[in-house]
Amino acid sequence: MAWEHLQSRLLHSFKIFNLIIDKVRNKKTGQELDLVMVSGPDAANVICLTPDGLLVMVRQYRFGTREWTIELPGGLVEKEENIEKACARELLEETGYKAERWQYIGKVPSNPVFMDSYVHHFIAWDASYVQEPQLDEEEVMEVQLVSMDELAAAISSGDVSHPHTLSALMKAKGDFVFNFAKKLD
Amino acid sequence: MAWEHLQSRLLHSFKIFNLIIDKVRNKKTGQELDLVMVSGPDAANVICLTPDGLLVMVRQYRFGTREWTIELPGGLVEKEENIEKACARELLEETGYKAERWQYIGKVPSNPVFMDSYVHHFIAWDASYVQEPQLDEEEVMEVQLVSMDELAAAISSGDVSHPHTLSALMKAKGDFVFNFAKKLD
Repeated sequence: MAWEHLQSRLLHSFKIFNLIIDKVRNKKTGQELDLVMVSGPDAANVICLTPDGLLVMVRQYRFGTREWTIELPGGLVEKEENIEKACARELLEETGYKAERWQYIGKVPSNPVFMDSYVHHFIAWDASYVQEPQLDEEEVMEVQLVSMDELAAAISSGDVSHPHTLSALMKAKGDFVFNFAKKLD
Repeated sequence: MAWEHLQSRLLHSFKIFNLIIDKVRNKKTGQELDLVMVSGPDAANVICLTPDGLLVMVRQYRFGTREWTIELPGGLVEKEENIEKACARELLEETGYKAERWQYIGKVPSNPVFMDSYVHHFIAWDASYVQEPQLDEEEVMEVQLVSMDELAAAISSGDVSHPHTLSALMKAKGDFVFNFAKKLD
């Protein structure tokens, strides 16, 4: 590794992340840099399918881009929480759906440039609606059941473009991605 | 839109982004929230192909996850800069490659939850090596020429997992994604 981390200093603590200054040193040249980092919990999302083959997705207002997005359900993993349980909890809270079978399909870094967290991806099958969604105060969202054809069209048009929704689909691997890719324009 | 933005306040300005506090109000309930936002320039990356069908990728050290990644080349778009030119400039600086034909394939939000920026994706063909790479002081990277089979294997194994590399592949659409997906495990 070309760089060694000398020190991490907490600059500010926010609800969803800590802002850290990492001091790093280049092992070859001795050069030192202060780099700002966003440090926070991992997240998880799920390709959640009903017995009819529909995806359970959420349309929600996102404050960063000030736009409505259509995304896979998911959320932050609380400290010490089992990742699959956290994702099942978020699915239930956001959509009211519960899935019977879960498979872990891998993780991606949230943004390796300046974030230390990862987003974990699952597929879950045999989902059914079991209760009213229970949203946090700042969450504005609604459930959308989407066919694979509709999802492919929405990705082609740009209506579905959250990078962690796209990375989940790419991580689904094998027949799933293959059959899905056939539908893309 | 359920929330209106009342005010944005600059908390801190860093080299790669500004930290902003957005005050928002729920139009229905009147509830007000202060939300921390990361505001910065857009970025761009490119699926860059040689005449032999190899992808020009970069292996680089990423400070956020303190790991080496294998990614599509790309970088930040300077203010007022043409996005395709910015991406071609980053490709040349990072890899020494220049591509003859470019196609814009869409954008994704960097992270719509707390970032206001977008990542723009391109495909470029007929790339050739024209000069030595010219790296910024903190950039540690090397060029890797990767076949589509190797890329598919690296995505399946997790060796390639930068979300904006995966989203670019998903945005490539049509025959490209279809032929690529056939190779995934």
